[in-house]
Amino acid sequence: MSKLVIVGAVAFDAIETPFGKTDKILGGPATFIGLAASQFEVDSAIVSIVGGDFPNQYLDMFKNRGIDISSLEVVQNGKTFFWSGKYHNDMNTRDTLATELNVLADFNPVVPEKYKNSKVLMLGNLQPSVQSSVIEQMNKKPDLVILDTMNFWMDTALEDLKKVIRKVDVITINDEEARQLTSEYSLVIAAKKIMGMGPKYVVIKKGEHGALLFFENEIFYAPALPLKSVFDPTGAGDTFAGGFAGFLAQTEDFSFDNLKKAVIYGSALASFCVEKFGTERMLNLDKKELNDRILQFKNLTQFDLSK
Amino acid sequence: MSKLVIVGAVAFDAIETPFGKTDKILGGPATFIGLAASQFEVDSAIVSIVGGDFPNQYLDMFKNRGIDISSLEVVQNGKTFFWSGKYHNDMNTRDTLATELNVLADFNPVVPEKYKNSKVLMLGNLQPSVQSSVIEQMNKKPDLVILDTMNFWMDTALEDLKKVIRKVDVITINDEEARQLTSEYSLVIAAKKIMGMGPKYVVIKKGEHGALLFFENEIFYAPALPLKSVFDPTGAGDTFAGGFAGFLAQTEDFSFDNLKKAVIYGSALASFCVEKFGTERMLNLDKKELNDRILQFKNLTQFDLSK
Repeated sequence: MSKLVIVGAVAFDAIETPFGKTDKILGGPATFIGLAASQFEVDSAIVSIVGGDFPNQYLDMFKNRGIDISSLEVVQNGKTFFWSGKYHNDMNTRDTLATELNVLADFNPVVPEKYKNSKVLMLGNLQPSVQSSVIEQMNKKPDLVILDTMNFWMDTALEDLKKVIRKVDVITINDEEARQLTSEYSLVIAAKKIMGMGPKYVVIKKGEHGALLFFENEIFYAPALPLKSVFDPTGAGDTFAGGFAGFLAQTEDFSFDNLKKAVIYGSALASFCVEKFGTERMLNLDKKELNDRILQFKNLTQFDLSK
Repeated sequence: MSKLVIVGAVAFDAIETPFGKTDKILGGPATFIGLAASQFEVDSAIVSIVGGDFPNQYLDMFKNRGIDISSLEVVQNGKTFFWSGKYHNDMNTRDTLATELNVLADFNPVVPEKYKNSKVLMLGNLQPSVQSSVIEQMNKKPDLVILDTMNFWMDTALEDLKKVIRKVDVITINDEEARQLTSEYSLVIAAKKIMGMGPKYVVIKKGEHGALLFFENEIFYAPALPLKSVFDPTGAGDTFAGGFAGFLAQTEDFSFDNLKKAVIYGSALASFCVEKFGTERMLNLDKKELNDRILQFKNLTQFDLSK
């Protein structure tokens, strides 16, 4: 079974949407990435850090899904990273109400020895210098390094971000962030510029409008499934990245054609994620539901010019 | 050859974009619809009105493209409808600088006798009561009546708009207008509500994010081609509608599967329209360019799960 290393925050989230609000629930990029990737036949490890307040039941949940947590450090006298946010009525914009870094402030990721030869490395959104340190720990460069990031690092650590971007094969970024990073409005030109910074592939996430995959002069457009309601968008981007990485680790095929399929799997998993609060839907998802939804995505865009 | 009636304004536009500005150039929904439809094997007629200031060369241009203009009324002592607008830097929003109805204020469309049995009727954006009067002039209900409209009529003539919506088979509308018409944010629910108002098919145009086609419980999503630059969006929606209507009139197949293809043709034609000011690109477009772009649309979204 192919090995996949997942690096990123594991967190508590408190979420408010027009449909309701939650207390502190399980969240964080590495959590959503790990849950999405666990839908595939991969041997994955989460490299992260939590506090003594992190329930054992969550740790057991990861283990029960076959996720290695030997490098998910538990700092007994520390507190888990906490994020709180409130979504506006359109569900596309949100206000951050609280960000408490807690143990994440001193996160020094250590890749487990057994996973240092993994074929795929998924760097969830984190401080760019920390992401770089993980790449350096690998025995050799993985076949595919995928980087997720956000505008916060463009504002506060741009040089470090550019350094890590140079070392990765795929970057996943949203449309506004791609524009900010390149000062280009056209996503086609922005993607070209980002490819010039290092990555072979650029994935631009457009939320309810889908995702674009760029490679050389080619473009693949995976629409998002139009939904009757979006209950909670938290984690959708990370779930997309986890599905994308999990599918690629399982198939060990890093061609453009296979990355297209990975984008579809990522989109399909993200479409489940938003149906319930936090991780709830991802924890109750079976392979048949996923396969049915993949067919829905196929039907959504396929047309036959030959008839 | 299948007959197509096109009703709508023929206009002068003066356009300002970040890339430049124009004097009064040829524009108007019926113009863009007619030019797009003329890419197909159809016998189409434009029903509209212009003033004595409308150049004969434009009338000849329509005739040279095989478009019947016997019901394109020329009011010698009147002036042609004039619209002027300025696009913002993102090209997605614009300010209207001037709207001079002129001869359009007294437009009484008359469908030519020869076209009263047309299979397809395309009602471009116009006052809803005028759109209704055109449907009533047909000898029998056409096989397909397509309606385009805009938020202005929702604000000023909602009851008349609802009346005409009841009589049509397809409505094309943009996302914000679909939300306004139904008071629903989800486009899935909005489309359902609009289908409940009469039309069998609902097309929701999302500009750079593509177009959605709804039919019963099915959805087809045609992404827009990501472009390096959008030079002038004026007429893109009408060009979409004209390509959609022209393809359907040519093929005389009004099934969901064929409407999917019509959406792709409409999207492909719209992607040309925005490359130059006004009608410039549409006047210099050949069938090979169109067919090449249709293949680009195919490549943009197609993926193969079987391999």
